[in-house]
Amino acid sequence: MELKVQSLLIKAGKYKVVLNTHDAKELGVRGGDRVQLKDHSYLTAIVETGEIIPKGTVGVYQECCEKLGEACPLTINIIPTSRPNSVSFIKKMMDKQKLTQEEIYQIVQDIVKDNLTEIEMSAFVTTSYIHGMSTDEIEWLTRAMIDTGEKIEFQTHPIMDKHSIGGVPGNKISLLVVPIIAANGLLIPKTSSRAITGAAGTADLMEVLAPVEFSADEIKSITERVGGVIAWGGATNIAPADDKLIQSEYPLSIDPHNQLLASIMAKKGAVGADCVVIDIPVGSGTKVQTMEEGKKLARELMELGERLGMNVECAMTYGASPVGRTIGPALEVREALKVLETMQGPNSLIEKSTALAGILLEMGGTAARGRGKDLAMETLRSGKALNKLREIIEAQGGNPKIGHTDIKPGEHRGELTSPADGYVIEFDNKRIVEIARIAGAPIDKGAGVWIHRKKGELVKKGEPLITIFADKGWKLTNALKSAEKDYPLIVEGMLLERVQTFKVI
Amino acid sequence: MELKVQSLLIKAGKYKVVLNTHDAKELGVRGGDRVQLKDHSYLTAIVETGEIIPKGTVGVYQECCEKLGEACPLTINIIPTSRPNSVSFIKKMMDKQKLTQEEIYQIVQDIVKDNLTEIEMSAFVTTSYIHGMSTDEIEWLTRAMIDTGEKIEFQTHPIMDKHSIGGVPGNKISLLVVPIIAANGLLIPKTSSRAITGAAGTADLMEVLAPVEFSADEIKSITERVGGVIAWGGATNIAPADDKLIQSEYPLSIDPHNQLLASIMAKKGAVGADCVVIDIPVGSGTKVQTMEEGKKLARELMELGERLGMNVECAMTYGASPVGRTIGPALEVREALKVLETMQGPNSLIEKSTALAGILLEMGGTAARGRGKDLAMETLRSGKALNKLREIIEAQGGNPKIGHTDIKPGEHRGELTSPADGYVIEFDNKRIVEIARIAGAPIDKGAGVWIHRKKGELVKKGEPLITIFADKGWKLTNALKSAEKDYPLIVEGMLLERVQTFKVI
Repeated sequence: MELKVQSLLIKAGKYKVVLNTHDAKELGVRGGDRVQLKDHSYLTAIVETGEIIPKGTVGVYQECCEKLGEACPLTINIIPTSRPNSVSFIKKMMDKQKLTQEEIYQIVQDIVKDNLTEIEMSAFVTTSYIHGMSTDEIEWLTRAMIDTGEKIEFQTHPIMDKHSIGGVPGNKISLLVVPIIAANGLLIPKTSSRAITGAAGTADLMEVLAPVEFSADEIKSITERVGGVIAWGGATNIAPADDKLIQSEYPLSIDPHNQLLASIMAKKGAVGADCVVIDIPVGSGTKVQTMEEGKKLARELMELGERLGMNVECAMTYGASPVGRTIGPALEVREALKVLETMQGPNSLIEKSTALAGILLEMGGTAARGRGKDLAMETLRSGKALNKLREIIEAQGGNPKIGHTDIKPGEHRGELTSPADGYVIEFDNKRIVEIARIAGAPIDKGAGVWIHRKKGELVKKGEPLITIFADKGWKLTNALKSAEKDYPLIVEGMLLERVQTFKVI
Repeated sequence: MELKVQSLLIKAGKYKVVLNTHDAKELGVRGGDRVQLKDHSYLTAIVETGEIIPKGTVGVYQECCEKLGEACPLTINIIPTSRPNSVSFIKKMMDKQKLTQEEIYQIVQDIVKDNLTEIEMSAFVTTSYIHGMSTDEIEWLTRAMIDTGEKIEFQTHPIMDKHSIGGVPGNKISLLVVPIIAANGLLIPKTSSRAITGAAGTADLMEVLAPVEFSADEIKSITERVGGVIAWGGATNIAPADDKLIQSEYPLSIDPHNQLLASIMAKKGAVGADCVVIDIPVGSGTKVQTMEEGKKLARELMELGERLGMNVECAMTYGASPVGRTIGPALEVREALKVLETMQGPNSLIEKSTALAGILLEMGGTAARGRGKDLAMETLRSGKALNKLREIIEAQGGNPKIGHTDIKPGEHRGELTSPADGYVIEFDNKRIVEIARIAGAPIDKGAGVWIHRKKGELVKKGEPLITIFADKGWKLTNALKSAEKDYPLIVEGMLLERVQTFKVI
């Protein structure tokens, strides 16, 4: 069917066109079907239908326009075409049939190429969540995620890497682990994420110190030059399927287990990692509730690593309380830098960082078994880690002379004080993160929460429990209101609710 | 956040706005999250993000603009808000937990109000397909589908209705059943669908004779006036959730069992039906492959009917071959009218129509048990059914004097002839429908297929197997090409493929 082209000045995120309802009927297609746009070449697009586009005209979203070339043609020939085979493979999954490696590869490729509609993407993640995948399928999924993106190949080996399953606030340890490893002569090209539901991802933290957006080639060359990098994975084309999947999973608040595994290992596989340590925070409020669950996850990650030729070790860590006493980009970076500069700072941060770095040093052969943590501690104490971080900051284009006192948290500050004397008997990680987010984290770098009292600590009435920082006054107001309405910490003996008036009936 | 309003001249099918990626981050929302537009009143909208909308501006789709009033405001205050509770109920379903009646009602209500994104809708239908629902949940789903739409309440009772599960081509029996029932003094307000993947739905057929788009009130008054109506359900607001669900199911080629049941019974419940006969075609190529499956489905429908206070009977019918010898709107109507006028026509059509009408006549108390089919046949033979159909046509605004010879099938015609002498040993319903659709059915009323030979019938070489009709020459060419490439009928002894050249290696 020959139709006039009306260029829509809007992006759809996919190759999409809008047909008038009547033309769509005439062509025998419905919303979600595919058509081919036949000009010089063929382009497959997803159909929307509506009355807003007049009969005889096809509305063409930005992506299609760009693909059709400089000058969008005046008319174009539209022919119905079949759905990608991936859709029938997704159907096969729904029917609990196993997929082949080729089928999984095709699904992942179509995801990366934006060939699947939101309905199809959602069916895939929903089915993944419900049915899961076999070990073979998870391996194929991981390989497909690696192969449909950029890969880094280093000449030197071993390549080290770390990952945290997440779920514990204030987990700024990569800022210490990466320089400790690199200072010991091992290469560690760390790609990391920005916070989605958290208050600060490692990429958000590093951005306080230096740019974090690099291509895979730049990540390689910085790593080869100074031994390490802390980059934002989202700026690369490494395992790009992961981000597309998250876009469908986030609205449903699901994180299918097969994709959790594949996503972690694909990112490590794509940068050519040989030795990987994975931090599994365990405790209420994190993603892993019990030690048993944690061990199961560790076994799965190690098996998947083995299948992919990576040496994986896992460390189960205490996740019920934040790491250190700060939440939010500037506050966390200040706390981490202070440890690097002075060895002064929360024990939870120093212990966890050196423990994980120690495992990597042993895996990489730099420390003997059982001696890794000591070497890590020594690297930290000697100032070698600080110097290495400065080299990394400089290589990434930041100011290497920065000190922890140069980093200013938000100027708008408010305190939540204890309404009673007593011990902190409840500490709600999720509420703390929520308050930091309302205060502006992670987008406002100065926003966040300083924790004065953690679980089990003693506090006197009127003493501060937390200080909230914000870059903007109105955000501080909102965060304080939220904190006062529903305390993130419970002090023994404190009233949970005060009923002020009674209505006698 | 106060943003400038940019009205997008396009419909999204939902209340949707587009935020600049930076503003979205600042607000702490992502694609698929919800915001409230705060003007005089509150309006909740789904967020898309992109670079196409400048910072400080919100792109507002048509639906939101209309809701905001005549003059879209120049600026508007945007605040993040939570997702509808339905999303967590859908998550509950994914986790295989049972839902309450209230939870199901809320999901259905959000579906009807277009409050759910495509990702959420797809998660619901995918989960329904995988996990199904309990009998209680299916009852609640049906009640919710009834209660979220228009309902018809008749003063006279009983109200009769029929439904076919579908899957068998040429099933034009409603054109006979409805007038037979109405001619016997019973009320039958038949709402029907248009073909989605078929060659002609009952609404597509009736449209050849008269308008079919009526409101629920009009359906009621026509039924009260002449005893029956054959209307397109899609024009009413009866059980509107069904259509929205189909929009998410169609792209995945799934028809979740719970929704199949609820959809049928909701439409019957909403028109106040007391007695319903359901036609379950059984056989390869239909939705029900075996008698056992058919019986199971029948039991489920009858139980659901009982829970809803409806008397339901099911008839399993032969579905391996088309009903009658015509496929496509004009051809089918012509065949049905000829039977009404002359009692001449395919036995399969006359037998099936009178058998189902007979069941309804017995259920309605007009015929004694075992005497329904005779009464139906007599109603047909006496011309009473024809007169009643003419009354219905006139009441719907069509020409009551129309005769079968007035209905002209498409003028472009082509034959598929038998390449050999022999019996028809295979007959592919789906291919026949496909060919009729390529020829233009159901949108081109004259398009379709005339079947000269059905399964088991004898044919001589060169005699026609089918004639293809089309309103447009190019569609006939395409349909003929498709038919010749892959024959829908196989004649015993016919070559399936001729290998014409050999390459000797």
